[in-house]
Amino acid sequence: MWVAVDIQARGMRVWVHDQDAVIPLEADLGVSSNEPLVAVLGRLLLPYVKGAEPLLVLCSGASDPASFAPVPVAPPNGGTAVQVQECDPRMDLRAISGVGQARPSDFLSGEETAVAGFIAAHPKWDGVLCITGNHSKWVHISAGEIVSFQTFMTTEMFELLAQRSSLAGDVGESGWDSDAFALAVSDAMSRPEKMTATLFSLHADAVLKDPSPAVARARLFGMLVGMELAAARPYWLGQNVAVIGTGDTADHYVAALKGQGVIAPQLDRDKMGLEGLRAAFMSLQTNDA
Amino acid sequence: MWVAVDIQARGMRVWVHDQDAVIPLEADLGVSSNEPLVAVLGRLLLPYVKGAEPLLVLCSGASDPASFAPVPVAPPNGGTAVQVQECDPRMDLRAISGVGQARPSDFLSGEETAVAGFIAAHPKWDGVLCITGNHSKWVHISAGEIVSFQTFMTTEMFELLAQRSSLAGDVGESGWDSDAFALAVSDAMSRPEKMTATLFSLHADAVLKDPSPAVARARLFGMLVGMELAAARPYWLGQNVAVIGTGDTADHYVAALKGQGVIAPQLDRDKMGLEGLRAAFMSLQTNDA
Repeated sequence: MWVAVDIQARGMRVWVHDQDAVIPLEADLGVSSNEPLVAVLGRLLLPYVKGAEPLLVLCSGASDPASFAPVPVAPPNGGTAVQVQECDPRMDLRAISGVGQARPSDFLSGEETAVAGFIAAHPKWDGVLCITGNHSKWVHISAGEIVSFQTFMTTEMFELLAQRSSLAGDVGESGWDSDAFALAVSDAMSRPEKMTATLFSLHADAVLKDPSPAVARARLFGMLVGMELAAARPYWLGQNVAVIGTGDTADHYVAALKGQGVIAPQLDRDKMGLEGLRAAFMSLQTNDA
Repeated sequence: MWVAVDIQARGMRVWVHDQDAVIPLEADLGVSSNEPLVAVLGRLLLPYVKGAEPLLVLCSGASDPASFAPVPVAPPNGGTAVQVQECDPRMDLRAISGVGQARPSDFLSGEETAVAGFIAAHPKWDGVLCITGNHSKWVHISAGEIVSFQTFMTTEMFELLAQRSSLAGDVGESGWDSDAFALAVSDAMSRPEKMTATLFSLHADAVLKDPSPAVARARLFGMLVGMELAAARPYWLGQNVAVIGTGDTADHYVAALKGQGVIAPQLDRDKMGLEGLRAAFMSLQTNDA
């Protein structure tokens, strides 16, 4: 028996592997609290720590920055995982290393395991992964290695602006307008520097004309994604691109890329993370043997 | 006796004019609450509403969007002020009209009175005013008229990112580094689309290298001001520019403009607002006569 743990910005995914069975545990609540990881895992995995051997727990997204592997590098595998000392002695908790980059200064912390899962499923693939989320990560992969990457705070900025800024009253909590989104992406790509000015025009439109919260929502996200696509152009232009992510945010990235003529297949982030953790487990078995 | 009221994003300035005496009232607390303007003013001005005539209260920053004057237009004066009906009958509260612009969609609400104050003091001046604040406003003035303007949410975005985003732990609440600011302005001006990517590098630097909250603070504001200067270039390039604002934020704008070879005199926002309200009062006396 072993446990795969994938810590993401919005929650933790946990899968207990018992022989051929994979039991997903609901663990999202644990991470949003300030409870330390080892305490959350100790509590969550209590029913499974009964054996004579310590329970192996392989965890991505929890590595110490000091152990980040520098690019270019194959996604760190189980053999590079660092044992976390301060945990329940009935668990053998190992943190898979993240990936660091000096210029531009950046890091992957957990996403490298989703990349490993993708590479395990597509060993010959060269191109770029766009891993969506609170922060999106564009990751250039070649010959099974992470060559370079770039993180964008687009979705976090969107939520800050939509929920906590002067625009909060103008931008709907739901609703969408695909045309407004496409236009905003295209405008932001051609005049990215106008973004902070265009932001206020959303508010002015709501004050001076008829407010349209769904249109404002799509325009705001479109402006920010357009800026991201402008800056990430070296990543996606003329490249194989796959989007790792599901749900509305990922769908909007796929639509924005399609608007630039890039047809990107879309993969499930959790599934890629699980595959990466399984590959790490396999490599660990090989190392230990 | 009459009262000048200037409603700004961060508080209300109130000056009671009694013969030649000008009595400033402390009123900042009133606006940040949700108490309606007429209630705040009623409470604040209670000691002054004793005469037989209703007390004249001239107010900027409180006009209904429906009465915004479209550009190009001379800053609205006292004669265009709209009487606010739902107030204490012992007050004659008049709201000076804001200024609206259709393309790009934008408005001035209160700043037009500071512009009027500036024009009253500098009647022959042609050029651009940069009114700093939570939202900055670049206002092109020619022949005593507001020709066009553009609002930027730069300082609001800075505070959201510095206080409520993933960067909150990295960006100091105080401290500054002028060289880091100048470099960030210059980088953002030459590659504005990189902004959302560069944001994360602030966080990565704090994680991977030695955190420096003062440098991070200066870099973050520099990135955002650099984007603003890139977008506002048609406003300031080859123009007379004056900055209306005091304090750190305004000082940073002056420094950023100086880095672009633009030497901008700096004027006090409250003083310009008061001068504008006085000019509006004078015009009202002339109209009424």
